[in-house]
Amino acid sequence: MRENLTMSTDFYQLTMAQGYFFNGRKDDKAVFDLFYRKNPSGNGYSIFAGLEQIIDYIENINFSEANIRYLREQGLREEFLKYLSKFSFTGNIFAFPEGSVVFPYEPLIKIEASIIEAQIIETALLSIVNHQSLIATKASRIVEAAQGDKVLEFGLRRAHGHEAGLYGARAAIVGGCFGTSNVKTGEKFGAAVSGTHAHSWVMSFDSELDAFRAYAKIFPDNCTLLVDTYDTLNSGVPNAIKVFKELEFKYSNCDNFNFAIRLDSGDLAYLSKKARTMLDDAGLSYVKIVASSDLDENLITSLKIQGANIDIWGVGTKLITAFDQPAFGAVYKLAECNGKPKIKVSDNVAKITNPGNKKVIRVYDKKTQKIKADIIALNEEAFDEREELTLYDPRDSWKHMKLQVGEYYLREMHKPIFLKGHCVYEKSKLNAIKEYCQKEKESLWDEYKRLINPHIMKVDLSDQLYDLKQKLLYNKQK
Amino acid sequence: MRENLTMSTDFYQLTMAQGYFFNGRKDDKAVFDLFYRKNPSGNGYSIFAGLEQIIDYIENINFSEANIRYLREQGLREEFLKYLSKFSFTGNIFAFPEGSVVFPYEPLIKIEASIIEAQIIETALLSIVNHQSLIATKASRIVEAAQGDKVLEFGLRRAHGHEAGLYGARAAIVGGCFGTSNVKTGEKFGAAVSGTHAHSWVMSFDSELDAFRAYAKIFPDNCTLLVDTYDTLNSGVPNAIKVFKELEFKYSNCDNFNFAIRLDSGDLAYLSKKARTMLDDAGLSYVKIVASSDLDENLITSLKIQGANIDIWGVGTKLITAFDQPAFGAVYKLAECNGKPKIKVSDNVAKITNPGNKKVIRVYDKKTQKIKADIIALNEEAFDEREELTLYDPRDSWKHMKLQVGEYYLREMHKPIFLKGHCVYEKSKLNAIKEYCQKEKESLWDEYKRLINPHIMKVDLSDQLYDLKQKLLYNKQK
Repeated sequence: MRENLTMSTDFYQLTMAQGYFFNGRKDDKAVFDLFYRKNPSGNGYSIFAGLEQIIDYIENINFSEANIRYLREQGLREEFLKYLSKFSFTGNIFAFPEGSVVFPYEPLIKIEASIIEAQIIETALLSIVNHQSLIATKASRIVEAAQGDKVLEFGLRRAHGHEAGLYGARAAIVGGCFGTSNVKTGEKFGAAVSGTHAHSWVMSFDSELDAFRAYAKIFPDNCTLLVDTYDTLNSGVPNAIKVFKELEFKYSNCDNFNFAIRLDSGDLAYLSKKARTMLDDAGLSYVKIVASSDLDENLITSLKIQGANIDIWGVGTKLITAFDQPAFGAVYKLAECNGKPKIKVSDNVAKITNPGNKKVIRVYDKKTQKIKADIIALNEEAFDEREELTLYDPRDSWKHMKLQVGEYYLREMHKPIFLKGHCVYEKSKLNAIKEYCQKEKESLWDEYKRLINPHIMKVDLSDQLYDLKQKLLYNKQK
Repeated sequence: MRENLTMSTDFYQLTMAQGYFFNGRKDDKAVFDLFYRKNPSGNGYSIFAGLEQIIDYIENINFSEANIRYLREQGLREEFLKYLSKFSFTGNIFAFPEGSVVFPYEPLIKIEASIIEAQIIETALLSIVNHQSLIATKASRIVEAAQGDKVLEFGLRRAHGHEAGLYGARAAIVGGCFGTSNVKTGEKFGAAVSGTHAHSWVMSFDSELDAFRAYAKIFPDNCTLLVDTYDTLNSGVPNAIKVFKELEFKYSNCDNFNFAIRLDSGDLAYLSKKARTMLDDAGLSYVKIVASSDLDENLITSLKIQGANIDIWGVGTKLITAFDQPAFGAVYKLAECNGKPKIKVSDNVAKITNPGNKKVIRVYDKKTQKIKADIIALNEEAFDEREELTLYDPRDSWKHMKLQVGEYYLREMHKPIFLKGHCVYEKSKLNAIKEYCQKEKESLWDEYKRLINPHIMKVDLSDQLYDLKQKLLYNKQK
């Protein structure tokens, strides 16, 4: 039995659905956009994640008899319940490939379906994308800060429950983490898992040295010793050195073994430098130093600046909760109904939506293969690389940029995921998504990737879309 | 098939378990405490939540054949895998009742089990308690700010995935929310669910008035109209008034109906006051005003101070993610091994653990039934209400308080949950837990409940525990 998220929705999706049903509008054709307005944590881009769980969800939507009974008790009516009991999604879904670099206001997912179907799937799509894109983006920031060092995801115990841990760790891998402590993420998605021992292991023995020896006996070739249970420099590191030297005495090929110490508290800059010297002085320069302890991209940057001798970064709470900004803020807005473009007006200009059935075109610089800009355009618009291209700033349209033929190439970002209710997208393995995401990030200049005050990517509205939006704003509906 | 979280663990739990197994220590007796160090969001207390899911988890632990195959691929050894394939939890678990008011350093859960069993369940227990106690505590703050108004949980779309939404909404109810938009939380736990319509409903019609009429046709007796799609005061509220008056014309008993308008953007203080006047002037004083829009306890407090006319508060993102502090920080520490008390030392005094097999005694003032203090004591210690009681500050022991016989009474907070692996705890219904939590909060003076700089509850260490801790600190293990 697969996980069934059908009832994971807001009740208003069902009251609205009942409303459309009895108003004779259930087959009205709608286009909805799922998009977000602001990159989290002040980042210059976001990483789109969650597509795989969305596919599972859509394929398994099913209101069971028990669900129908419950909804009857909530006052929904028989004829509508009968409709729900046979409900499945029969529309089209287009989306960016999972792991794509994305920007504010771009439709990450576009739904073309009957209005009732599009509405019923809203909440599930949002909660999946909001969670996983958030964590993938946070992971990407942390991995950037680590400047090529391995980052491991350690956060399950601080995740918002098991599923948040499972998919959060998956998203962390998409965003660039090397591995995770989460066994289920390893089993379900093929992520690299790792783990050694806790303070309790050390405390449960009569002495730290006994504890290290006992651990090394069972894991001689993959031995990371946690050195901060009692006193890192006076007890932990010397005992670890003793045990590694005993292993060297016993085995001839220790330099092929994975030996490491782990620092989990205290002044990591000072301790890692002292520990490195102690290990090197003992002839153990191949022993790595793993650090953990409430790390995030800012602390890692600071430790790097201080010259900390840390090889591998274990990141928990701050990554798995996206601590500094734990919500991604994606929304789901009606863009077209029965062929008519729709706009949501607001006093807050940032909250005005882009009307119509749209697509996203990415413009690359031919020489560097870096992204120049994205264009949000109407679906029927044609773009021709054999013509000069002019890009306008979406807010300040006097700012513009001309691209000559041969200087640029275009890429349409939306892929069909479901057509007439059938999945037409071949899911990738997690490691392939991670690699794709890495390539996506390589298409960004460093200026867009820096952690503080990054360049803002140009996301242009096509002339036609811009004109349509202006027209609707001036004739706004009452 | 029930949800199985067995593999939702950190890999190091399994490497340690294998270590204990092959070191002949798997049956060593251990006592672990699950506790936290700091109330989230600067609160004066926390609400303990998650016990029900923990019981489900413990009762369903089971490494399937597929799980074992996966763990074999990860290098775990045959004899140990054979042990895992027959694994179940056979120890004792004690805990506070769900919904209890708790304080830092108190063992919320105490595990007495073989060290290998206690270790294998660690991560799952932490992720459950960390998530649900966090959200219950945040909900409690928001409900305090609403000063008796109904608070509804609306956050599923911003939750960290579906499970976070499901159990988050449940925790929000425990913490005092009246209901939720989350259908699954309603179905699974009997929470009150509610919901009406979104902006998309309004946008999908040719006019706002058509949209309101169509909604009112289907839900004449439970009609909340969202009034901010185009222009709240010039279009939304007047159209809503028109529709409510039409309903009044059609039905004779409208004052028994649930009519409301919902404000979801803009200046809620200004808009709610203007809308209230417009409704009252139209003779619709029984129509309620619901507000939502990134609310939290601070915004609600501010709106209250401004005299906003809001009857019902819908709270989403900031509650379901505990936005300002999205991690609870509970930890799981070894307190005793084979009868020997254990302590984790740290340069950071706040991180030193309390050793030994412990219990928590709550001291109430007899006259007011308010909590005076909590005492963390050794399990074997006896307390007698017929004797005078002296309480010491755990850090500054010159601060103390004497309670005379007759002035106080005691309550032991831990309840047995599992004994020898069997669940002995009768689960309560969600509404009973919510009511219990409400009573728990009534046992706190307002000074402990205020949102900023609350009184700090005294959590005393008993004399015997204090002496034991000092002894171990002075003879700290190397």
